[in-house]
Amino acid sequence: MNIPQGFLFAGVSAGIRKEGRLDLGLIFCEEKGISWGVFTKNTVKAAPVLIGKKHIKNLVTRAILVNSGIANACTGKEGLERTERVLKALSDLLSIKKEEILPASTGVIGEQLPEEKIIAKLPDLVKKLSPSNYADFAKAIMTTDTFPKISSQLTGDGIAILGIAKGAGMIAPHMATMLAFILTDAKIDKKDLQTLLLKAVEESFNRITVDSDTSTNDTVYALASGKKEIGNWEEFCEKFQRVLYELSYMIVKDGEGASKVIKVIVKGAKTKEEAKNFSQAVANSLLVKTAFYGGDPNWGRILAALGKTQIPFDPEEIEIYLNGIPWIKKLKTQNKEEVLKNELRKNDIELLIKLKRGKQNYWMLTCDLTEEYIKINASYRS
Amino acid sequence: MNIPQGFLFAGVSAGIRKEGRLDLGLIFCEEKGISWGVFTKNTVKAAPVLIGKKHIKNLVTRAILVNSGIANACTGKEGLERTERVLKALSDLLSIKKEEILPASTGVIGEQLPEEKIIAKLPDLVKKLSPSNYADFAKAIMTTDTFPKISSQLTGDGIAILGIAKGAGMIAPHMATMLAFILTDAKIDKKDLQTLLLKAVEESFNRITVDSDTSTNDTVYALASGKKEIGNWEEFCEKFQRVLYELSYMIVKDGEGASKVIKVIVKGAKTKEEAKNFSQAVANSLLVKTAFYGGDPNWGRILAALGKTQIPFDPEEIEIYLNGIPWIKKLKTQNKEEVLKNELRKNDIELLIKLKRGKQNYWMLTCDLTEEYIKINASYRS
Repeated sequence: MNIPQGFLFAGVSAGIRKEGRLDLGLIFCEEKGISWGVFTKNTVKAAPVLIGKKHIKNLVTRAILVNSGIANACTGKEGLERTERVLKALSDLLSIKKEEILPASTGVIGEQLPEEKIIAKLPDLVKKLSPSNYADFAKAIMTTDTFPKISSQLTGDGIAILGIAKGAGMIAPHMATMLAFILTDAKIDKKDLQTLLLKAVEESFNRITVDSDTSTNDTVYALASGKKEIGNWEEFCEKFQRVLYELSYMIVKDGEGASKVIKVIVKGAKTKEEAKNFSQAVANSLLVKTAFYGGDPNWGRILAALGKTQIPFDPEEIEIYLNGIPWIKKLKTQNKEEVLKNELRKNDIELLIKLKRGKQNYWMLTCDLTEEYIKINASYRS
Repeated sequence: MNIPQGFLFAGVSAGIRKEGRLDLGLIFCEEKGISWGVFTKNTVKAAPVLIGKKHIKNLVTRAILVNSGIANACTGKEGLERTERVLKALSDLLSIKKEEILPASTGVIGEQLPEEKIIAKLPDLVKKLSPSNYADFAKAIMTTDTFPKISSQLTGDGIAILGIAKGAGMIAPHMATMLAFILTDAKIDKKDLQTLLLKAVEESFNRITVDSDTSTNDTVYALASGKKEIGNWEEFCEKFQRVLYELSYMIVKDGEGASKVIKVIVKGAKTKEEAKNFSQAVANSLLVKTAFYGGDPNWGRILAALGKTQIPFDPEEIEIYLNGIPWIKKLKTQNKEEVLKNELRKNDIELLIKLKRGKQNYWMLTCDLTEEYIKINASYRS
């Protein structure tokens, strides 16, 4: 793992979730860090989202505090006050300003944050801060995740980019019950970080879907400690982008109950918007997702999903490829059922749809839909 | 059951599906019937939809021919020709014009209609025609349905309205793998029938969702034998509407794997469109649907679904009622968990969401999402 310089991590159990489960995480930036954030577009925004949106505008960011178990969403004025008091307590301990901390929460909506429990654990959390405790932090932010999500890159200049994320369900474009933290020791302007983050999110987290639900808490924070000059800007951007893509891939892979990741690629649409609509229709179709789960080469469901957009097209012109193998051309299957079934059994599937309408492309990452998704979500809260 | 005068029904097994399973149905109108139809908005339209759209424009309709097992969608020119040949054979047997028959198909997409099997069975089908065989017809059009869907009404004037439908999955507004046939012995203008049907569909089939997928085959045909004068137009419309509502309710009740029907009512939106968007967001949310399945009063998911629309509103202003019982007001639960859980255990649930933004209302029928849905759809084709 490439840990950027200037960052310390910690994760503790504050008793928000089950006893002994890590549920409170802290990232501390030893320098005057530069940050930016991207948040949920849901009208209902959690308290930490409302506060984070303000705090990222400050010139200096020193810490990120995250809890799992309680989302602190739909909690009104009281929810805001509770987060403010927690941040105040932490800022006193760290001798920084409360406005220099970015908060994030994930978990059940509609319940108040147990601030006493959290505040009581803050000294312990701060004591545990260390460059090597990033895995504890990654575990502390998990909810229905089955594995911690960590990705890192190192540039030729020796700049490290580390991404830590959580998210498994309620995943849809414009994010979801999804939190991601991107850290780098690069020296970068706030303006440049903002531009870079927005672009990278557009090509990663905004292209994933598990259940097309959008959460009230989705947040991506980027934080730079400024320790190292960027020599090769293009390489830096490319590696930064790769960290976000890998994290978004991991989230889909860990999609609640998912058994496979499907990359839906639409090529040859008239407009970008059209390509996006087609991709989303296929990636979100429950019938397509269950067919992939069942390993059933039921291509009619893909065409039906494309048609659901009501965008006019000629079905005969559509070509479909499965992991590069021709599947459908002129409404006829191009390969033996057994060959196709074999491809569908794989855990990583590329579904390429060629439209011959124009030159615009789009892609989305989705997963299959299994009985396990229902089990998890019918009983999550209790 | 109130069977309108002038109609004969039949259902036979043509071997399209499993041996012995009824899969071919016929309705014959003894008079020169008046018809209209409403079809899927999916860009990919099945062959019978393309043909039916033309045939309803004719002044006279004498028969409706339906098969299950094969949808005859994504079958190109050959699919159209096969249906045309089947209709020609039937028209010869019935001594009517081919254009006086309305076709419909439901089943697997992308496979050609076994026209020889069907044509070979047509004489038997015609021989079985009788006013009492409507149940055979209803059974012949079923796919994943677990029960035949029949509803009827009788007006004070003695006019009968009979509706027969099929549909269980791929159900979403602007219809689905959903077929419905509404028959009446009323004497009615084509123009009036058209207006009435469009309005009735808007308040029934266009408000149901099982999985937000839209099929390539959805069709509602209305056919009037003209045997009886309508005395009370309003009563007739009201009863006609009721037949469609009851059929659409039955389809949601039989939603693949569903254990309960949920009527989502949104009141107090600024515009009708807004009310509709809110209703759809809640009715289609997998997280809401699984929470209802699990009997979990997880109201945060309802607010998150409303917020997903990105329509601005104040969460504190939202009131939620469950079967008439206050649930949420100012983001606080208004009743004991046990009381709410008890309501969620019921098979018929009314979820009322009050917005206090304006005067526009909308409602949708949806169902819960269970493991059974996945099982059915992961293996449907094989």
